[in-house]
Amino acid sequence: MAEPTPNPAPPAETPEVAGEEAGPSKKALKKAEAKAKKEAEKAKRAAERAAATAQASAAAAEDHATDNYGQETHEIKLSSDAIDISLKTLNDEHLGKKVKLRAFLQNARMQGAKMAFVELRETGNWAIQGVVAANADGSVSRQMVKFIGSVNPESFVVVEATVEKPLEPVKSCRISNYELHLTKLFVISSAPAMLGMTLSTANKAVTNFSDEEAPAEAAVEGVEKLSIAGEVSGPPAASMLTHLDNIVMHKRSYVQQAIADIRVEVKHLFRSYLRDQGFKEFEPPCLIAAASEGGANVFRLPYFEKEAFLAQSPQFYKQIEVLAGRKRVFCVGPVFRAENSNTPRHMTEFTGLDLEMEVTDYREALHMLEGVLLHIFRTIKKTCADEIALVRSVYPSEEFLLPEEGKEVRLTFAEGQKLLREEGPEEFRNVSDFEDMTTPQEKALGALIKKKYNTDFYVQEVLSGGQRIHDPVELEARLRTKGVDPNSPGIREYVDLFRQVGAPPHAGGGIGLDRVVAWYLNLPSVHLAAYYPRTPKRLLP
Amino acid sequence: MAEPTPNPAPPAETPEVAGEEAGPSKKALKKAEAKAKKEAEKAKRAAERAAATAQASAAAAEDHATDNYGQETHEIKLSSDAIDISLKTLNDEHLGKKVKLRAFLQNARMQGAKMAFVELRETGNWAIQGVVAANADGSVSRQMVKFIGSVNPESFVVVEATVEKPLEPVKSCRISNYELHLTKLFVISSAPAMLGMTLSTANKAVTNFSDEEAPAEAAVEGVEKLSIAGEVSGPPAASMLTHLDNIVMHKRSYVQQAIADIRVEVKHLFRSYLRDQGFKEFEPPCLIAAASEGGANVFRLPYFEKEAFLAQSPQFYKQIEVLAGRKRVFCVGPVFRAENSNTPRHMTEFTGLDLEMEVTDYREALHMLEGVLLHIFRTIKKTCADEIALVRSVYPSEEFLLPEEGKEVRLTFAEGQKLLREEGPEEFRNVSDFEDMTTPQEKALGALIKKKYNTDFYVQEVLSGGQRIHDPVELEARLRTKGVDPNSPGIREYVDLFRQVGAPPHAGGGIGLDRVVAWYLNLPSVHLAAYYPRTPKRLLP
Repeated sequence: MAEPTPNPAPPAETPEVAGEEAGPSKKALKKAEAKAKKEAEKAKRAAERAAATAQASAAAAEDHATDNYGQETHEIKLSSDAIDISLKTLNDEHLGKKVKLRAFLQNARMQGAKMAFVELRETGNWAIQGVVAANADGSVSRQMVKFIGSVNPESFVVVEATVEKPLEPVKSCRISNYELHLTKLFVISSAPAMLGMTLSTANKAVTNFSDEEAPAEAAVEGVEKLSIAGEVSGPPAASMLTHLDNIVMHKRSYVQQAIADIRVEVKHLFRSYLRDQGFKEFEPPCLIAAASEGGANVFRLPYFEKEAFLAQSPQFYKQIEVLAGRKRVFCVGPVFRAENSNTPRHMTEFTGLDLEMEVTDYREALHMLEGVLLHIFRTIKKTCADEIALVRSVYPSEEFLLPEEGKEVRLTFAEGQKLLREEGPEEFRNVSDFEDMTTPQEKALGALIKKKYNTDFYVQEVLSGGQRIHDPVELEARLRTKGVDPNSPGIREYVDLFRQVGAPPHAGGGIGLDRVVAWYLNLPSVHLAAYYPRTPKRLLP
Repeated sequence: MAEPTPNPAPPAETPEVAGEEAGPSKKALKKAEAKAKKEAEKAKRAAERAAATAQASAAAAEDHATDNYGQETHEIKLSSDAIDISLKTLNDEHLGKKVKLRAFLQNARMQGAKMAFVELRETGNWAIQGVVAANADGSVSRQMVKFIGSVNPESFVVVEATVEKPLEPVKSCRISNYELHLTKLFVISSAPAMLGMTLSTANKAVTNFSDEEAPAEAAVEGVEKLSIAGEVSGPPAASMLTHLDNIVMHKRSYVQQAIADIRVEVKHLFRSYLRDQGFKEFEPPCLIAAASEGGANVFRLPYFEKEAFLAQSPQFYKQIEVLAGRKRVFCVGPVFRAENSNTPRHMTEFTGLDLEMEVTDYREALHMLEGVLLHIFRTIKKTCADEIALVRSVYPSEEFLLPEEGKEVRLTFAEGQKLLREEGPEEFRNVSDFEDMTTPQEKALGALIKKKYNTDFYVQEVLSGGQRIHDPVELEARLRTKGVDPNSPGIREYVDLFRQVGAPPHAGGGIGLDRVVAWYLNLPSVHLAAYYPRTPKRLLP
């Protein structure tokens, strides 16, 4: 039932008051009347007291349900024949059965004095309605209903219940075609009476991504701050800082659960696709002896009697693996950038998805990256359809358009520049083939390609780069033309590699996991796709 | 053919010398003779010169194979109809076909002037014998044979060949039932004439794992040093430091390739098993704001205007995930320990395999860990049988014994102590249930269990610990009894988590990937199981 008709209310228990009668003389009457009034009032108060006491003790005696509910200190007694259920797999075979479920109670409300509704969430947005109504045999008492109706939202509870069909589909929960008729509920761990951020607020789009530290009192007055930031109707939305200060509620939100589930799949598909293509996973170190990209934007730390750096890229190690005859390798792991960029696009630590392979032409690596990304996007479109729709309901975006199989869009850099010049906006009429593209140029090219080929995804072949130089003599010469000393620390070790052995020609590339997720979902910040975003101003939680 | 019979040698090209004849007078004769001799010698020398020139130019003209071989600068001309092969999938259908292969040439030797043998390794220990013989039509010339016979070992080459059956199985290569009759060979990247460590040496067991920096000249004189450390017969073995100084050759060795392949599978199986059990992967941060285990043995670094630490454990973040309703999570990533321990068992950075889950009893997590490890060990025994055998041929060890399905050995701590007291060595007759086990006690217990239950793998249930305290009041009290201030940095954030929301009871655990691999293979050092071991004395490569 969606909203069951409450049982007819019992007659109100109003204590009867002693009545009044006419007497002989006026004075006597008045006196008697006054006395009687006093007595009556006295009696009334006594009766009221007695009635109240009787009611209280009757009620206490009446609660035959004390074994069926309680706070975390209460001993939990569950029936041994109750079936453990998971909401994702709930089905008609469970109808009428006695089941048990451990879940977050995300909402509770009384319906009169004898009935309460709750929403029980297991994980993600997998929630089901629970109903509890005081019954005649006393196994569900009014006290129990009142207890359940006043559990603090986001407490963790265990319930025992029978699975029933609701009269009408339940609109407020993802599970709309079943509900739980509660027979027991125990609070295993109670949430505070006032949450730092409610689930409703956590479920809304983040209002701003400013990375500035909030003033010290903001964390304490989080709730007040929320109402100020709130919209005219509905629950208020909150800033990213408030979300991060309330990390568990941030993560409990439906939208963050959906993003996390998509991220899990992206990572899994990256690996499974490459594994099928003969790639072997390996783990590059984070602690390295020399700054991998010349020392700029690198974290350095004391390391016993020396100094260490945090790797900005796994490139050096990917190359060692290919030189060592591993043929095709990939790695998925943390990458560090000590860049003081405080934007929604930057993080100081992120998860890199990287591959490297023996090639005869560097475009083989480019097309492998294209292949794995297309595989990821084509697969999640189907397997994560619910999650993607949920994210879009909070962060609206259009469908991410992909080229048809066999109709991948690949442009050389020169072809891209030509397209910009010929069909792009006025200001790009004279873009040169010999200069790097600017961000506005990239955006304009993306728009042109989308219009022309109906895809958000294309690959641009850059004529130089991509393929590594594996000849030490050529490598040294190239380094010198770039003004880099081949014998400087970090560089020498790199060049030496190619002097040790004969090296297969190889190429590779990589992309940030956070960026892939944020790109596909068109999220307003990469921080929403990260589990624990790290920025120059923030290391917590 | 294993060793093909060389073609019959062509007749030696000896130039004919002008002859001598008898003349009239003695004097005249003598004079004539002397003159004739001079002339003859002159003619002979001229003839010899002419012959040499003719021979040289004939030979040069004869080399019709110049398009079929060459150094890296040579233009590579391969037949468009040659099939790309991979040694792992080579089969009878390839017999007699023209194929091409890119590989490391690991060995080359001349057999007379007109034939050479090479070993071509694609990856791991997947090598095949190549044969090249000068032929009548000149498409394989003597010069080409000589060139191939003198390629530096560990150069990277591309060959074109026909696949043939050898007369006898080839003993020196993993591919014993096919060989390649080379028709072309180009060196794509040449190894140096003298390797820092040869493949034969790299294939041998590491002689010692001392972590002391070798003196500066040792790296330069690597080869000399090796011969000193060498055995009486066979190629010399080398120390771990020499191996790490020659990282590419270290990794090209068969044994390291096999260990790496096993490691890849262990990691893959950890994830696939847990994924099947409903676990979701996530990435904890490495950079954190407070030392996670009280500040001892933690790396710290300047972080913009603050200080950051490198995570010693993902525990805090695993717990956040479960509190956030993810139910079951795992992570695979780097963990850092700034411990100045220079032993073959320690590393400052390693790959942690960690899980955390909602539980009703902490043993659920313990049994999940048991389950995943048994799954890993049972699976690799089958899928990595070749690799395991190869590792054991270099680092001998007995089979890792596992309990039969359903007969897992689980002991409580008290049961373990009892076993030690009753059946263990003399010195453990009085071990107490109230003290932690020492390493010798653990070893003795392991030996007892192996003897009693025929397994190297068992689980010991520790009565306290394992399950996390999710009640903030209890957590604070427990911290105080341990002498920890619940309001100290790092600790306060942890306790605060449990104040934010109601928390499901949860438990978890973890183990190092490197240790799992080293344990199963009984390797003499965990450094052999790591890709790039990090120790207090070593950050390179």
